[in-house]
Amino acid sequence: MLQLYFSPMACSLASRIALMEAGIEARYHQVHLWTKQVADDSSDFRDVSPNGAVPVLVLENGERLTESAAILQYIADAKPEAGLAPRFGDPDRYRLQEWLSFTGAEIHKAFLFPTFWYKDDGSLAKPRARIAQTLSVPSAHLADREFLVGDRFTVTDAHLTWALLLLRPAGVDIRQWPSLSAYLERMQARPAVREAIATEMALRKTLAA
Amino acid sequence: MLQLYFSPMACSLASRIALMEAGIEARYHQVHLWTKQVADDSSDFRDVSPNGAVPVLVLENGERLTESAAILQYIADAKPEAGLAPRFGDPDRYRLQEWLSFTGAEIHKAFLFPTFWYKDDGSLAKPRARIAQTLSVPSAHLADREFLVGDRFTVTDAHLTWALLLLRPAGVDIRQWPSLSAYLERMQARPAVREAIATEMALRKTLAA
Ligand SMILES: N[C@@H](CCC(=O)N[C@@H](CS)C(=O)NCC(=O)O)C(=O)O
Ligand SMILES: N[C@@H](CCC(=O)N[C@@H](CS)C(=O)NCC(=O)O)C(=O)O
Repeated sequence: MLQLYFSPMACSLASRIALMEAGIEARYHQVHLWTKQVADDSSDFRDVSPNGAVPVLVLENGERLTESAAILQYIADAKPEAGLAPRFGDPDRYRLQEWLSFTGAEIHKAFLFPTFWYKDDGSLAKPRARIAQTLSVPSAHLADREFLVGDRFTVTDAHLTWALLLLRPAGVDIRQWPSLSAYLERMQARPAVREAIATEMALRKTLAA
Repeated sequence: MLQLYFSPMACSLASRIALMEAGIEARYHQVHLWTKQVADDSSDFRDVSPNGAVPVLVLENGERLTESAAILQYIADAKPEAGLAPRFGDPDRYRLQEWLSFTGAEIHKAFLFPTFWYKDDGSLAKPRARIAQTLSVPSAHLADREFLVGDRFTVTDAHLTWALLLLRPAGVDIRQWPSLSAYLERMQARPAVREAIATEMALRKTLAA
């Protein structure tokens, strides 16, 4: 059985959404990202992930895979009949990789990551000044499309859904981009997406309590 | 013929290395990243790339592909006999995607990008404090490996080679990680890598003059 190391509402949420959309049962291990402890048994998460970051997917053979872009493609390919990624050989596969990279680098690493990890104003001024330009790219793309790639939900929609959800606590009101807020609403109306978010929001409340 | 929009020694260098390692002839269009002008004809690069960023690969059918992780896989798959990526279906393909994402997000976007684009100390303190931990990951991985994935050069080596080259002007001495500096030397000894770097260094000098 696949296993996912996650932290509630961290970027690992995209991998949970993908697993649930694929209908893949998995074991979930919660990680406390500040203390680097695995909740199950208080073991050191750095023994699992050299970078101390979620998501980590433990494959059936026990190997560990990191990085959302790789994990999400692995999950999609593990259940091809779910249609969560264009098949290899389909030119749209590169579009999927393009959006995975854009979301992971330009939205997550360039903006969300400093916002939640660095916090001080000095670190945030420049990323904040850039985010509107960055978001104009998916906003224009989604103006006349239901999904990022092709005409169905793929794992890169799971990834962008997570990123858009986090923009609000990061202080960015996505209603400035009506196509993005309409897209997020559409994605959140999907049962698997809704359930994944509800599960992690509940865990997050327990954590805060 | 494929066309690559690039700026000398920017991250588009990885795509040039991949094209040269594949033996694919391409047309190269130089972009001035600060003025967003294409050198050929002074046209506006933002008409080519909505995000104003290189690399952009123009495909045979005229479509444009952005994001190094996607472009590098496209180039590798365009010339499978060059062996620049594990074939789809090979589990190592996910390792390639893992390293493309790690390099693009954790080294490039989290560190090199702020260093060269934001410049002020306030923006740089936190990224700088993290970079040693980040580099310890490929350093440990390469301690007993010649290449990042499998036992041959792949496009993700082109990507990491670019990132390691830029660490020096970014103020990080990679000799602290002997396995990284030995790796960079090995990569730079490859004729295609050497030629790609020499071409862009020469263009860069013209630019500065
Ligand atoms: N490039 C990685 C980023 C992973 C990442 O930044 N994860 C965050 C949570 S969203 C984390 O675990 N941070 C803990 C840390 O950096 O110490 C990916 O796309 O999976
Ligand atoms: N995530 C993109 C990053 C592209 C990128 O940041 N390119 C830089 C040069 S290394 C650029 O063109 N910057 C110009 C700008 O951001 O205005 C990729 O991996 O290709």
